[in-house]
Amino acid sequence: MSTVLYNRVALIGLGHIASSMFWAMKRAGVAGEVTGFARSKATRDTARRIGLCDHVYDSAAEAVEGADLVVLCVPVGVMGQLAQDIAPMLKPGATVTDVGSVKQAVIDAIQPHLPEGVHFVPGHPLAGTEHSGPESGFAELFENRWCLLVPVEGSDPAAVSQLQALWSAIGANVGIMDADHHDLVLAVTSHAPHLIAYTMVGVADDLRRVTDTEVVKYSAAGFRDFTRIAASDPTMWRDVFLNNKEATLEILGRFTEELFALQRAIRTGDGDHLFDYFTRTRAIRRGIIEAGQDTDAADFGRGKTLK
Amino acid sequence: MSTVLYNRVALIGLGHIASSMFWAMKRAGVAGEVTGFARSKATRDTARRIGLCDHVYDSAAEAVEGADLVVLCVPVGVMGQLAQDIAPMLKPGATVTDVGSVKQAVIDAIQPHLPEGVHFVPGHPLAGTEHSGPESGFAELFENRWCLLVPVEGSDPAAVSQLQALWSAIGANVGIMDADHHDLVLAVTSHAPHLIAYTMVGVADDLRRVTDTEVVKYSAAGFRDFTRIAASDPTMWRDVFLNNKEATLEILGRFTEELFALQRAIRTGDGDHLFDYFTRTRAIRRGIIEAGQDTDAADFGRGKTLK
Repeated sequence: MSTVLYNRVALIGLGHIASSMFWAMKRAGVAGEVTGFARSKATRDTARRIGLCDHVYDSAAEAVEGADLVVLCVPVGVMGQLAQDIAPMLKPGATVTDVGSVKQAVIDAIQPHLPEGVHFVPGHPLAGTEHSGPESGFAELFENRWCLLVPVEGSDPAAVSQLQALWSAIGANVGIMDADHHDLVLAVTSHAPHLIAYTMVGVADDLRRVTDTEVVKYSAAGFRDFTRIAASDPTMWRDVFLNNKEATLEILGRFTEELFALQRAIRTGDGDHLFDYFTRTRAIRRGIIEAGQDTDAADFGRGKTLK
Repeated sequence: MSTVLYNRVALIGLGHIASSMFWAMKRAGVAGEVTGFARSKATRDTARRIGLCDHVYDSAAEAVEGADLVVLCVPVGVMGQLAQDIAPMLKPGATVTDVGSVKQAVIDAIQPHLPEGVHFVPGHPLAGTEHSGPESGFAELFENRWCLLVPVEGSDPAAVSQLQALWSAIGANVGIMDADHHDLVLAVTSHAPHLIAYTMVGVADDLRRVTDTEVVKYSAAGFRDFTRIAASDPTMWRDVFLNNKEATLEILGRFTEELFALQRAIRTGDGDHLFDYFTRTRAIRRGIIEAGQDTDAADFGRGKTLK
């Protein structure tokens, strides 16, 4: 049994997250009409072809007109400009949210443009795969994943609850957090790991004494896990790093410090240091599996999909 | 149709690789009798209980007696001592191989102990999961994975071919490489990525301002991929780093250099540098999927195994 939570939802930007939201909202029956807009004509054409959104408009302003909920699903770096473009068309009482991976910078970019009487409830679903674009979405993406809502000063509690209900209805666990803490937590659980994976893959690609063919052939020894992360959308990630500078650089600083300590242990032959460190890190994996945030199947259960 | 390639095979060390080899060899029908030994009584008891090996002995010397092929499946750091223990019992004409992740140090440790007339053909199957122990093995582990053989000076070509046939029969692609190059390639595709993953997980675990609960709950944003690698066996990995110091430290040096360049781009707001770097690393992922070394299913196809 489902209840329509918003009569009209506008998805601005039609990539991986927006398309997954569309299919998930339709499946759950929580949205009336869903409109959409994407800056690229090719994306709009694809969306129309595959039936992504009930109506795809050629401008963001048209798409948001009359919407009760507007979801900004564009790279963090263009959120501000987009907010400015749509502001005049926003319906009084509407809720504006976003799905950006960084929160303080996005709030600073969006909030000044929003008219009085429009509720702003920033959000961030911690979900996604290495695939991108309008055809990569699927209704199950958010199931048992966390969506963090980051209300700003003056966010209407009723608007927050309504948005929380939407995310719950499409399968997510919802958490509430303030922007600074969000940006630090994500620097640890996402931004630093992504930069590190990109770096390692870049180094391998660069190494003259080991050919690319060798790197590719022998990747199953560990490296291939990094390449999945390092295949994520370049625009999205450029904007994440530029907009969560401080926290990301802080975590990378801690990372480098620790890495140097381990390098030193290797150089000096301090096996106990290495053994103790490697034993400690096992526990975290166990916690993640117990929390239902990863599979215990060996190798992520890859054998099931890989011949 | 299968042919017995070795009448008697001895597996010394009964962990993830040895147990997978056992089930794979039995399935392929390429080994006559398979004997086994593990240092720990608990492991030997488990092996007997689950039918791992036709006969489990209480000493390595007994297990290798009469064997045509002896496979050393113990951590790299104890290979030398093991070779010394079994040397007097090795049958003339037998082949000794190993599955260690490092080759030059293992060759230096084993070779001096082997009697004349015994063929030494070091090897390294690039396969494994984050699970360890005698119960974690499965017959399909080596399918379409690479096994690198690293013949030493004077390795008998017939002995090399025979071992190559065994690995092929249990599903692996076989490559031949010299020890130094092997150790460098693996430093890139395996050893450095593992140390980096261990480091990142350690940093997250350590960070007081982000609780462990948060790290665990929000791990799906990227971090959880690192925790799988960082859940690998601590003894095995301690020994890998201590025995492939030079190549690992060289790659980590390159990694740090590159990481600093990217950190600098973040600090100075050089979006083009970041975008170009992140675009380049996508291509390697594509290559790995085309080479059949990883799945193209989103998120490693995790959805299939994770509720």
